[in-house]
Amino acid sequence: MKRIAILGSTGSIGTQALNVIRRHRDLFAVEVLCAGSNADLLIKQAIEFEPNAVAIADETKYNMVQEALVPHDIKVFCGMESVADLMEMDSIDMVLASIVGFAGLRPTLRAIEHHKPIALANKETMVVAGEIVTRAAMENHVPILPVDSEHSAIFQSLVGEGGGIDKILLTASGGPFRGFSREQLSKVTLADALKHPNWSMGRKVTIDSASLMNKGLEVIEARWLFSVPADRIQVLVHPQSVVHSMVQYVDGSIKAQLGVPTMETPIQYAFSFPERIESHLPRLSFEQYGQLTFENPDMDTFRCLALAYQAIEKGGNMPCIMNAANEVAVQRFIDGKLSFLQIADFVEEQMVKATFVAQPTLDDLLATDEAVRRGV
Amino acid sequence: MKRIAILGSTGSIGTQALNVIRRHRDLFAVEVLCAGSNADLLIKQAIEFEPNAVAIADETKYNMVQEALVPHDIKVFCGMESVADLMEMDSIDMVLASIVGFAGLRPTLRAIEHHKPIALANKETMVVAGEIVTRAAMENHVPILPVDSEHSAIFQSLVGEGGGIDKILLTASGGPFRGFSREQLSKVTLADALKHPNWSMGRKVTIDSASLMNKGLEVIEARWLFSVPADRIQVLVHPQSVVHSMVQYVDGSIKAQLGVPTMETPIQYAFSFPERIESHLPRLSFEQYGQLTFENPDMDTFRCLALAYQAIEKGGNMPCIMNAANEVAVQRFIDGKLSFLQIADFVEEQMVKATFVAQPTLDDLLATDEAVRRGV
Repeated sequence: MKRIAILGSTGSIGTQALNVIRRHRDLFAVEVLCAGSNADLLIKQAIEFEPNAVAIADETKYNMVQEALVPHDIKVFCGMESVADLMEMDSIDMVLASIVGFAGLRPTLRAIEHHKPIALANKETMVVAGEIVTRAAMENHVPILPVDSEHSAIFQSLVGEGGGIDKILLTASGGPFRGFSREQLSKVTLADALKHPNWSMGRKVTIDSASLMNKGLEVIEARWLFSVPADRIQVLVHPQSVVHSMVQYVDGSIKAQLGVPTMETPIQYAFSFPERIESHLPRLSFEQYGQLTFENPDMDTFRCLALAYQAIEKGGNMPCIMNAANEVAVQRFIDGKLSFLQIADFVEEQMVKATFVAQPTLDDLLATDEAVRRGV
Repeated sequence: MKRIAILGSTGSIGTQALNVIRRHRDLFAVEVLCAGSNADLLIKQAIEFEPNAVAIADETKYNMVQEALVPHDIKVFCGMESVADLMEMDSIDMVLASIVGFAGLRPTLRAIEHHKPIALANKETMVVAGEIVTRAAMENHVPILPVDSEHSAIFQSLVGEGGGIDKILLTASGGPFRGFSREQLSKVTLADALKHPNWSMGRKVTIDSASLMNKGLEVIEARWLFSVPADRIQVLVHPQSVVHSMVQYVDGSIKAQLGVPTMETPIQYAFSFPERIESHLPRLSFEQYGQLTFENPDMDTFRCLALAYQAIEKGGNMPCIMNAANEVAVQRFIDGKLSFLQIADFVEEQMVKATFVAQPTLDDLLATDEAVRRGV
């Protein structure tokens, strides 16, 4: 029985992870649930899965959760510091890091320091602090199992291979605005950006998918997860989202992982690795997907992707600057304060304006993140 | 330095294997060359690669080869028995079994009995005697590394996986007659059948590709190589021949191997496994292959494929009967004595007519093969 702590249980990845656990109660159990502010759902999940403890980041919701769960003999904590503290529990066998954004970094690092294998669904952990996190994982002999469908595909394509990577082919659906000109992009609305053709995800990720910033974050994440420089990570637009990514080896051979577009498969794989276990999810039908297409991304129009390559090339705290700026920009886009095209403009401005640190410590990264968010 | 014996060095696979060795003289050397009757090419190859010994099956060519190679201090043998005997040489590290047809079986088995790892390009070895060969390989702890691009793709997709195979997706180009009706097939000529869209191969294999018998033989081969029953091996027509085959796992995940259509990649992989080594072969370009398509095979029109499924389901010496009948039929088609559609008719007739043996020994298989060829 693998006892799992879920960081971000009420989000899109968290709820899908609970679907996986629900179908495999003989193999997996929930040890800890942590949520941001969705107390109602957290309570419901806790009653169903009977974890040892839950934590809610939003301290104003503590009493509500506490009262609901006392009769169920479930410990209740609140605040982000509690979330990180819970990662030290001996009874946790694996941590699913699926808090969206920068907030996921600290509890994830704490889990690594306490030797917990990580199922990583929080891109920002690697984007902001890839060097620090991979070093900590290596020092603590902690495996990091990617949960993003693309990185899971790369990981699966690398299983059993002894190196010899030529390049990584990171596939991208292209999002709802694939093929759009800048002229067309200048007119898109929030509602347009939230209509992703293939994947059902949270709002932040969906908007990042539309701007291709999501793919940029994934390039940076892949750079750290697989120790491959960004100039050997090629983004390939593949609108059907069936080939989840590929690895090309030095002998010219390419290995790919394919499947229906559902996050439950990579989540389950991270939980069950190195085994594969039965899944009753729909199989890929080549009658339905009789045609798979591939094209190069348009980085002149979708500038966020180009900015991400620039950020990883620059290194230091630049990916952190870019990530924080993007979180701010996406929130402003959601709030109607920025147009879609202004997301990239805003991010680029911050990348020019913010203080560059070549060899940042974790404190430097926290300071950078805060400074960009405050607009300093 | 891996010292390789090449069975069938003057054929299509043999000459491509020598291309691989020529580019990697630091890693591979030729220990033995065996050819059927092409003495001129065998002599040329021997002078270039300086093997310890060569053998020519056609005994009438012995003197010619002997005279040419004496000055080069290369031992020369003739006859198929000599070919098998050479497989016992201690200095051989790996045997490339690339003699086309039933003749490849005996020397391959001899090599296995003498603990030589096999790079297997001879389909018939597995089709005719899959059970005997896989048992011998297991008893002698001999790895069999498939060289067929499809089986190499499956092998590569299985590397590092601990089982959990749901099904094998064996891709097929569909050959030059893909989409043809029986009416259209009734009019095709030998020249038409020899025009394969993607692969440059020998005549027998090219004709088998056009009739889909090649894919039928591959289904049977896969059944033995990977211990997967035929009803979990699905043929998928993929005209671009870029996805060389796939494995679907119990979790719904599919792994695939892709590359440009060249045999040199799987040959090199079999030679270098478990390492991958540099290759200067062209890389797969997704600009060129922007669209990959998949469709089900038409087994009512291309009856050879259906016959192969029937043969493996029946078991015993039935695949041997089918294989021998097909070799006869293809020769008759080449000789203008059978039409293209009559290939399947002839094979089916023999499958009904020949004596069925449920648990054949190797002698039974040899007798079956001979009987079908003699038309008994």
